[in-house]
Amino acid sequence: MKRRDFLKTTATGSVAAGAAAIGAATFSKPAIAQDKRQLKMVTTWPKNFPGLGTGAQRVADRITAASDGRIEVKLFAAGELVPPFESFDAVSGGTADMYHGAEYYWQGKNKGFPFFAAVPYGFTAPELSAWIRFGGGQELHDELAADYGVKPLLAGNTGVQMGGWFNKEINAVEDLKGLKFRMPGLGGEVLRQLGVSVVNLPGGEIFPSLQSGAIDGTEWVGPWNDLAFGFYKITKNYYWPGFHEPGPALHVGMNREVWNSFSDSDKELVKACCEVEHDIMLAEFNAKNGDSLNTLTSEHGVQLRKFSDEIMTQIGEASGDVMASVANEGGIVKRIYDSYINFRSKAIAWSKYADQGYMNARLLPFDYS
Amino acid sequence: MKRRDFLKTTATGSVAAGAAAIGAATFSKPAIAQDKRQLKMVTTWPKNFPGLGTGAQRVADRITAASDGRIEVKLFAAGELVPPFESFDAVSGGTADMYHGAEYYWQGKNKGFPFFAAVPYGFTAPELSAWIRFGGGQELHDELAADYGVKPLLAGNTGVQMGGWFNKEINAVEDLKGLKFRMPGLGGEVLRQLGVSVVNLPGGEIFPSLQSGAIDGTEWVGPWNDLAFGFYKITKNYYWPGFHEPGPALHVGMNREVWNSFSDSDKELVKACCEVEHDIMLAEFNAKNGDSLNTLTSEHGVQLRKFSDEIMTQIGEASGDVMASVANEGGIVKRIYDSYINFRSKAIAWSKYADQGYMNARLLPFDYS
Repeated sequence: MKRRDFLKTTATGSVAAGAAAIGAATFSKPAIAQDKRQLKMVTTWPKNFPGLGTGAQRVADRITAASDGRIEVKLFAAGELVPPFESFDAVSGGTADMYHGAEYYWQGKNKGFPFFAAVPYGFTAPELSAWIRFGGGQELHDELAADYGVKPLLAGNTGVQMGGWFNKEINAVEDLKGLKFRMPGLGGEVLRQLGVSVVNLPGGEIFPSLQSGAIDGTEWVGPWNDLAFGFYKITKNYYWPGFHEPGPALHVGMNREVWNSFSDSDKELVKACCEVEHDIMLAEFNAKNGDSLNTLTSEHGVQLRKFSDEIMTQIGEASGDVMASVANEGGIVKRIYDSYINFRSKAIAWSKYADQGYMNARLLPFDYS
Repeated sequence: MKRRDFLKTTATGSVAAGAAAIGAATFSKPAIAQDKRQLKMVTTWPKNFPGLGTGAQRVADRITAASDGRIEVKLFAAGELVPPFESFDAVSGGTADMYHGAEYYWQGKNKGFPFFAAVPYGFTAPELSAWIRFGGGQELHDELAADYGVKPLLAGNTGVQMGGWFNKEINAVEDLKGLKFRMPGLGGEVLRQLGVSVVNLPGGEIFPSLQSGAIDGTEWVGPWNDLAFGFYKITKNYYWPGFHEPGPALHVGMNREVWNSFSDSDKELVKACCEVEHDIMLAEFNAKNGDSLNTLTSEHGVQLRKFSDEIMTQIGEASGDVMASVANEGGIVKRIYDSYINFRSKAIAWSKYADQGYMNARLLPFDYS
């Protein structure tokens, strides 16, 4: 298939992108105690938004606690200090010391950023961690972000997101054509290739839009966050698997001057306190998604429907096209793409015999419990 | 199927259990600097054993660095201070301050311990993390280990292990009967139910035993560690998927008096420095396994062979029997079992639509790279 250059526009990011816009714009200047250092952490999430906002708060609290308050991190939810999508600029310019957010929010600055969060048909959470830590990913991320005066640190993951909610059954690719569907980012670009009328909406507007029929469907995150938004009240068709965000990572981005001002010891401390959240947040999403999936199907009559192999194959082709068009940017984006694609091939080859092979065998009919 | 009580004997653990016995028994008393606290960490691994030993060293170095040397952790490899399988007693009794090892090594003390490392057909690494952190696992582990004066902290994972090497093809359950196969722990108990003549051997004895025909096959860890041991020189039949250790966690166990002597702040610091290793070690195994698998198949002619569904189903039945017999212990073991089984059902239900559903779709034939 001929590769084309799709990405004319800058799409906004995806994980709870809209929800972030809900935050109120209040801000009070924090007091600075003597002998202590106070860091402002802006986030792209509303205050205590389940999973993402609470995870960011855990990171802030952990650094404060582990340093015995020497490094006090004060969290500002979306809009409290700056609007959510200005978090990167705020840190880059020194208005804030650090942010917690998803790197694909900054793809308008450089198309290399989404690779460190999630791309269509890309890495799962453990694979992303392997690439970042042992496959050259962190070095490329450091190089990319340094151009903007930012030091990135892995700090969260939502795990595989669901395919989304549809007001009718989707049995073939033709059923997607003309559908008005909410999906931001590169995933939305992929669906657009298949004839979907892709829209982006802030979190707070999704439910009423689905209710009024202004949109025919939406993805959000997964069972835990989707249950809270109440989409099951409007439609029962919940599709899997998702392709657009198979393991979206969240990061802390720290102003490089602030980062460089730390002692080696404090760098280790901050690094450990951020990076442990990659596993912790993923654990929380997996635990809560399991519970919420059970609630959706057993209490709310939600039907889990599988996209056909034909649909998932065509989505795969379109994903390949979209990714190749990103690589056409050249320069560091091409180097990131090449590293990602190379690692992805090996990761798929291994997971086929490991996690995937094991999990498939585990579904065989035997009496375990 | 009627549950029976199989586990009359205490099997030794599995991850590199044998290799640990290789370490030399030398020990020099460390100097204690003023104003600094020096902790002795014993491990069940040989010095710098790839993945496990190097991961334990990272944990020790991270605590030392993040505390700016206030808490200096000095690592003693297997045999340097105490023999590897006396690590738990050494920490419990105060000879050492902490250990790094696999909790199933202590199943002779209590059959509840293996649940926190790996059990046949149990959790993958992310699922274990979810149970430990958000499913009540840590609380049960704390309760169990407190009886021995130990505070456990998650500190590593090898990811899914392979099914192992066989000197002939295994096409049916009958082909397993009478085979002399090396597999320690509960996994070995499962194979014994299927007629395998199960043996346990230290790491250093596996290769010569396979070469001489004293054993017909062996599992070890995964492509990375197995490549280093050179099993491919003797047989090319490398089977998948493994069932016995689908995501074995490693832990730091700390003497509870030492743990309780820490300030709240230092508890947070030590916790973050240990727990981040769960994700880091898993990342290293996944990255290196991907590379090594490629080397094994492309350079050494290794054939990846899949256990049939019939074999994996019968292994599943036997695994259920073995696990139920463990639960027969009653008391805290039964409570751990119940918690594990309950969480496992929800985890499988979720992963089917999430990681597993996604990874299966990703193997469809489309042009991505």
